[in-house]
Amino acid sequence: MRYRITVSYDGTGFCGWQSQPSGRSVQDALENAVFRLSGERTHVVGSGRTDAGVHAIAQVAHFELSREYENKTIVGALNAHLPRSVRVSDCRRADDGFDARKSAKRKTYMYLMYRGERSPLLDGRAVAVGDADCESMRRIAEDIVGTHDFTTFMAHGSGAKNAVRTVYSVRFEDDGKFIKMFITANGFLYNMVRIIAALMIKAGHGEPVDIKALLAARDRTAAKDTAPPYGLYLYDVEYE
Amino acid sequence: MRYRITVSYDGTGFCGWQSQPSGRSVQDALENAVFRLSGERTHVVGSGRTDAGVHAIAQVAHFELSREYENKTIVGALNAHLPRSVRVSDCRRADDGFDARKSAKRKTYMYLMYRGERSPLLDGRAVAVGDADCESMRRIAEDIVGTHDFTTFMAHGSGAKNAVRTVYSVRFEDDGKFIKMFITANGFLYNMVRIIAALMIKAGHGEPVDIKALLAARDRTAAKDTAPPYGLYLYDVEYE
Repeated sequence: MRYRITVSYDGTGFCGWQSQPSGRSVQDALENAVFRLSGERTHVVGSGRTDAGVHAIAQVAHFELSREYENKTIVGALNAHLPRSVRVSDCRRADDGFDARKSAKRKTYMYLMYRGERSPLLDGRAVAVGDADCESMRRIAEDIVGTHDFTTFMAHGSGAKNAVRTVYSVRFEDDGKFIKMFITANGFLYNMVRIIAALMIKAGHGEPVDIKALLAARDRTAAKDTAPPYGLYLYDVEYE
Repeated sequence: MRYRITVSYDGTGFCGWQSQPSGRSVQDALENAVFRLSGERTHVVGSGRTDAGVHAIAQVAHFELSREYENKTIVGALNAHLPRSVRVSDCRRADDGFDARKSAKRKTYMYLMYRGERSPLLDGRAVAVGDADCESMRRIAEDIVGTHDFTTFMAHGSGAKNAVRTVYSVRFEDDGKFIKMFITANGFLYNMVRIIAALMIKAGHGEPVDIKALLAARDRTAAKDTAPPYGLYLYDVEYE
């Protein structure tokens, strides 16, 4: 029986999504909870990795169990066994052909910024950007949309063979205090959203940022900075 | 030289404001930072205590040092020595007659609630209230405003001799997701806001809550519940 779950987590205390010998990953926490429910050791396969400190509003994952459970039993039991920093919001049966990683068609990340000085109450969940101007961000964001070779926007150490991705939209919400950047693509390279967020913050402070030239450079050293992980949220994963 | 500072903090990792032998209080963190700036051991006197897990957006405190420093030097040096969970946003010189606790005329607390199921990303900073109705909260809130004996709304163990307080306003902001309750008074009894918040949550779920009868009872056991500390924020302290 294959199950598909939707998971939210506060990435602060984790070494990231991916299972680690330390066991301090979100995947380990979920696999332990599944074991405590079922007595079965199984892999919980996520739509993709998130780094240490990166959060998820709706990560999607799948796993297999030999026994059949009601969906609500799985939600209740997993939440009872998970730490408070991880929560399963949904469970449904999936076809054997469904793979949380391979079947994902579009993903959306949110990058959360706030105006003003660093606040202890937002620390670890959002990034302080002083008096950044959101209109300047919107202007350069247009050049990111489309199908491009994003080599410049890929961290070293990424295993990706092909850096071509299609960005469907970069959208901002600005309520005066918070600036939310939403970016939707068919896939993301390692650190791609955080590298884009760092450029947005630069542009927001009036520094010149030429996205077209950066894309054309196909050189990671052209876009130097990477914004902090704790502003980043895996927001949505879409399937066919 | 007497200095007045404004401080924000995430109360999660602290045993509260008040200095403790464990040293894990906000007051201890501030007194250590003042010592590292000045070499002087001094008391940092807050406008009032906050419990473990309670946050502050603008706590006010004072302390004395024999040497004169520029205000911005104090802000910079304290922030350099404080953990990231505490931040000094302002410092100014105060008259010798100024006492952060005794001179306070009005205080405002915020209680932060959100609709829906518990979210790991809001855990420790706000309280999940399902589909609570804010209009029902507004209706009962009217009866809290005024000068009353708040014995029913005071936790056991409070040292207060006199439970009469004047509540100037109880105000709500509701953006559909978050419900913020702001309550302003000339002073608060131990756990008073959290006891009121628990009644609001009850009313928000359609349970009958009779504030007038509760006030008249002058009996703590009449209002049974206390809402969690982590929804509570010391929001503002006003002086003459």
